[in-house]
Amino acid sequence: MVKKISLLGATGSIGIQTLDIIKEHPDKFQLVAFSAGKNIEITKQIIRDFSVPLVSVLFEEDAVLLGKEFPRTELVFGDQGLVQVAAHANADVLVNAVLGSVGLRPTLEAIKKGITIAIANKETLVTAGHLVMNAAKQYNVPILPVDSEHSALFQAMNGEKRSEIAKLIITASGGSFRDFTREELKNVTVKDALNHPNWSMGSKITIDSATMMNKGLEVIEARVLFDIPYDDIEVLLHRESIIHSLVEFQDTSVIAQLGTPDMRVPIQYALSYPERLTRESAPRLNLAQIGKLHFEEMDYTRYHALKLAIDAGRAGGTMTTVLNAANEAAVSLFLQEKIGFLTIDELIERAMDEHTILSNPDLETILHVDAKTRKSIENMVK
Amino acid sequence: MVKKISLLGATGSIGIQTLDIIKEHPDKFQLVAFSAGKNIEITKQIIRDFSVPLVSVLFEEDAVLLGKEFPRTELVFGDQGLVQVAAHANADVLVNAVLGSVGLRPTLEAIKKGITIAIANKETLVTAGHLVMNAAKQYNVPILPVDSEHSALFQAMNGEKRSEIAKLIITASGGSFRDFTREELKNVTVKDALNHPNWSMGSKITIDSATMMNKGLEVIEARVLFDIPYDDIEVLLHRESIIHSLVEFQDTSVIAQLGTPDMRVPIQYALSYPERLTRESAPRLNLAQIGKLHFEEMDYTRYHALKLAIDAGRAGGTMTTVLNAANEAAVSLFLQEKIGFLTIDELIERAMDEHTILSNPDLETILHVDAKTRKSIENMVK
Repeated sequence: MVKKISLLGATGSIGIQTLDIIKEHPDKFQLVAFSAGKNIEITKQIIRDFSVPLVSVLFEEDAVLLGKEFPRTELVFGDQGLVQVAAHANADVLVNAVLGSVGLRPTLEAIKKGITIAIANKETLVTAGHLVMNAAKQYNVPILPVDSEHSALFQAMNGEKRSEIAKLIITASGGSFRDFTREELKNVTVKDALNHPNWSMGSKITIDSATMMNKGLEVIEARVLFDIPYDDIEVLLHRESIIHSLVEFQDTSVIAQLGTPDMRVPIQYALSYPERLTRESAPRLNLAQIGKLHFEEMDYTRYHALKLAIDAGRAGGTMTTVLNAANEAAVSLFLQEKIGFLTIDELIERAMDEHTILSNPDLETILHVDAKTRKSIENMVK
Repeated sequence: MVKKISLLGATGSIGIQTLDIIKEHPDKFQLVAFSAGKNIEITKQIIRDFSVPLVSVLFEEDAVLLGKEFPRTELVFGDQGLVQVAAHANADVLVNAVLGSVGLRPTLEAIKKGITIAIANKETLVTAGHLVMNAAKQYNVPILPVDSEHSALFQAMNGEKRSEIAKLIITASGGSFRDFTREELKNVTVKDALNHPNWSMGSKITIDSATMMNKGLEVIEARVLFDIPYDDIEVLLHRESIIHSLVEFQDTSVIAQLGTPDMRVPIQYALSYPERLTRESAPRLNLAQIGKLHFEEMDYTRYHALKLAIDAGRAGGTMTTVLNAANEAAVSLFLQEKIGFLTIDELIERAMDEHTILSNPDLETILHVDAKTRKSIENMVK
């Protein structure tokens, strides 16, 4: 059976690699819809390569122009376009690889259509994990992780009972500034930050890696996906990014997933699950060649954003929405060179301090808190 | 449900630790029969601690004396006693923790009774793997590994399809002489050899670790247990013995089982499978504290016994029987200080060179080849 795939965020790093996987296995996967943002050249290329029936872009004018060039493709746009792509009637699996909480509503709509969710968009789970997981339960839809760490945890749990898990251990490479002191971090530039040692990724996630907020979001995501309490989720510094994460069971056995740092492996796994497809040409892990793997305890003072994330997760309710929105807004300000690197954490902490938690928020409340938080971050630097 | 356990080799290292596990979980396990050798004091202690209905010892005279002291326990002895213990009518699981190919016939008898086999006795699988696995298939009996490496492989395969496995990677600590050159190995003594850095085990297996024959037997055992071709089984030097083994899948994902070097974990897993029971007091793995894990390519020249084992495995038929019997006899000569350390390999190689393979041997043929090989090794040093 050919699985029909809809893809949100096709022109980003995860999106492009998802297309690689689909291309490698034409007998297994078929792209039926995708969304892109403003990168119209790549969008055209993808339409040509995959002859996709439905495409969404950010702006109406781009949709109109593309519609003329590709008469056999339906062109839509904006937030509503994302929902149309996500909930495409023919899709079996939605790969949600957009950035930020914009992925939330399309994900919920896809779930209602019974479409399996392969989720690379951690902000959706951080900002409204309970809505997504409750909907998934209600419509009996699997939520499959694409993030390498969560894919590793998911794989390590294969054939195991959730009730026998003692601890999740999420590994962290340490980001691009892992050897900097907090003092040295003060003056790092956008250019410095975008140079990650192990993984090639988009700029938002690269900054999140440098602040370690990425790992914080991952802790919250793990809490949401696997229903393991924060007390039983640990972060371990592991600079080589070879062990992608580990699960400790109550008998003290630890199961880990390892591999070369290649996002196509977890992407493919989410698409092919429960099967594993061959990757003929891909490099295999060679531990003898690597020689050594290093592990260090996580420093929660050094990585203040990680502490903020876990605090937000424990606080619950709308606090993770605030954390995520504040982080998205602050990282954007840093990328625009309007604030310094350490100010990212400061703004997030201020936003959290100023927020009064609403518990068990519905979608409207979340979208409202999200928008309000972004505005308040903007105001903090005016 | 309380699982009823029969135990071959109760006074050895694995046997004692199996008793620890049974003692820790009186609500889960009950000892119904065990065998011991010549260590009568420990045998008495076990009978007292567990009030066992059936016990076998090596010699008739010990059986008679013990029978008088413990009138409520049935005492048997010798090879036939082993079979009686192994195939005890009430047993759900046989833990086969005897040393050497003496465990073969009792294992086959237990399988015929439908008793699940937890196998720590790798010589049984090396000498007659096809008989054991065919019988297991015929009587629909699970063969569960107890060896830490095979337990790791087995755990890494949990929930996975065998057909999607690309490679088994068995880790090896390198034994007590891992930093010696082949030249330096010439004059090592029995005392030197019995000092293994990571695991506390019996003397035969400690010598097998030093020669790396243990790893060779494990490769053959893995071939037998998991039906993976020799080309897809690799040995990786990993001095810390923290990663107990790894499975690479065709999508390049690698799943590993890790833990502190504690044999009670795989023993318990074999007993409790498919459940995992808590081990409250046991030390948990702390990778940050360990700091570094090392990996090196295996040197098949340095470890000639490993090469011999894989050669024997590939040759098939009665050759693995010869390998195992020659090794048991040669190690015994070394432990008696009748031959030097490097002579162990030499004698095994000679025995293999002199042997003409019989394919698909039956039990009688195997026992005959086994006995003949032992005799020829004895004759080589006369």
